[in-house]
Amino acid sequence: MVTQAEKAETFRALHEASVPFALPNAWDVPSARVFEDAGFPAVATSSAGIMVSLGFPDGEAIPRKEYLAAVRRIVERLSVPVTADVVSGFGRGARAVVRTVELALETGAVGINLEDLTPSGDGLLPLRGQLGKIRAVRELGRTAGIPLVVNARTDALRHAPGEPGAKLKEAIRRAKAYREAGADCVYPMGLVAAEEIATFVDAVRCPVNVMVRRGLPPMSELERLGVRRVSFGPGASYAALGLLRRIGEEVRTQGTFQLLTEGAISFDELNALAVARRPPAAPGP
Amino acid sequence: MVTQAEKAETFRALHEASVPFALPNAWDVPSARVFEDAGFPAVATSSAGIMVSLGFPDGEAIPRKEYLAAVRRIVERLSVPVTADVVSGFGRGARAVVRTVELALETGAVGINLEDLTPSGDGLLPLRGQLGKIRAVRELGRTAGIPLVVNARTDALRHAPGEPGAKLKEAIRRAKAYREAGADCVYPMGLVAAEEIATFVDAVRCPVNVMVRRGLPPMSELERLGVRRVSFGPGASYAALGLLRRIGEEVRTQGTFQLLTEGAISFDELNALAVARRPPAAPGP
Repeated sequence: MVTQAEKAETFRALHEASVPFALPNAWDVPSARVFEDAGFPAVATSSAGIMVSLGFPDGEAIPRKEYLAAVRRIVERLSVPVTADVVSGFGRGARAVVRTVELALETGAVGINLEDLTPSGDGLLPLRGQLGKIRAVRELGRTAGIPLVVNARTDALRHAPGEPGAKLKEAIRRAKAYREAGADCVYPMGLVAAEEIATFVDAVRCPVNVMVRRGLPPMSELERLGVRRVSFGPGASYAALGLLRRIGEEVRTQGTFQLLTEGAISFDELNALAVARRPPAAPGP
Repeated sequence: MVTQAEKAETFRALHEASVPFALPNAWDVPSARVFEDAGFPAVATSSAGIMVSLGFPDGEAIPRKEYLAAVRRIVERLSVPVTADVVSGFGRGARAVVRTVELALETGAVGINLEDLTPSGDGLLPLRGQLGKIRAVRELGRTAGIPLVVNARTDALRHAPGEPGAKLKEAIRRAKAYREAGADCVYPMGLVAAEEIATFVDAVRCPVNVMVRRGLPPMSELERLGVRRVSFGPGASYAALGLLRRIGEEVRTQGTFQLLTEGAISFDELNALAVARRPPAAPGP
């Protein structure tokens, strides 16, 4: 039986390898289990994916309890480490954020994403407060005996004031501060172009997470650029819903079922995705 | 404001048209909303799709309350009529099944699928008991003032004893009995070939539902065969998860993100799928 603390160490080690690892984000049990079956060494949750699947817009409109229940459903049925996006922590101060992370650890997750975007999505949270949250979460990992992986996301590339150059500078400044406060990995939302990635990685000198978007270089180039972690964000939700839209169009306009039946998995395969491949890890450290 | 009773009538009328209607089955809010946006006049729930998405295998392992909460999330965010699959009714006797249907109506659904397969999936429920359930559900619709559409599914084509011919005969016998007991539509699971569809439709002389599978004729031929309702079953789940599997393979083996980024919807489009297009219908008759 692998303990939660061991899973956290396994997950942390992925960030210290010389090659980057791809980290798919899931939003429900079968999307997570498909990625586990595909051989990914860990799975992340997509906060937007989970929220929308349950009928809430992205942000923190969903009750924390309902959100974390969805995280738990995924964690309990996976054997690989799972890291949970906790958005900006479902609370204003460090105490509320620590409670959220504590509850996330109780689901069995071994890592978190914490962002500096306001829940309404219109601006950046103050740096000082964000550093306090990261320090408090780091300390929680120590006292709980679970060396959780803290991925600190900054939205400065989109929401910092000024020209693109000024935004990049602010993203680097925040990322370096988050790292000093105890983040294991930093995650600049919106970093896509190779040149900016190189600048950012060289400047922060710690594990960097980039998100897959159209235009992101392939894994081989990301390796050359020094990226460590490549997450899907809500990308798999976007792709799956794009397919459903095309299926709907085909059925409605042509009356045929090609996209619905080609490349599909079977009933038995679907059913197998509801349950764990192996018994889940023991809770606690 | 459209009432639930009016929605039920709208949904029933689709079964009485001279052309068949395609009925997509969804398993969460965005899959349902995408199908609504695609112009389908109604949306169904996929029981297997919902159950697996929440980490339960197909059948009735999921608590009824959790299952119906998922149905409610969908119904509350759609403006088109929604019909709910209630499997074999989450209970042995007619009284338990009626209670399940009552709860399904309380979510705002205006139709149900009721099957004659045992919850363990290994055989057929006795005909007499099934007829009692259909009569009781029909009566519930009268007393509740919601003319719900009852779709009676039979699994005789797979689980009746004997040769394929004997199974088809039993499926027809059951379908006719279900119709006499008050079913609005009959749904023989596993009916795919044009010749068998023709035989079945001619024999039962009432609205027939077929499920999309590889080999099912296109809508134009289904119209010629006299089919009224063409549902996806768990097909859209199969297709979406097939795509996620291919995405995983591409990322793992080639390190590229083509399937993840091509044909995908955007963040704003995803977010818009969390909420209703129009205010939902008023509850009650």
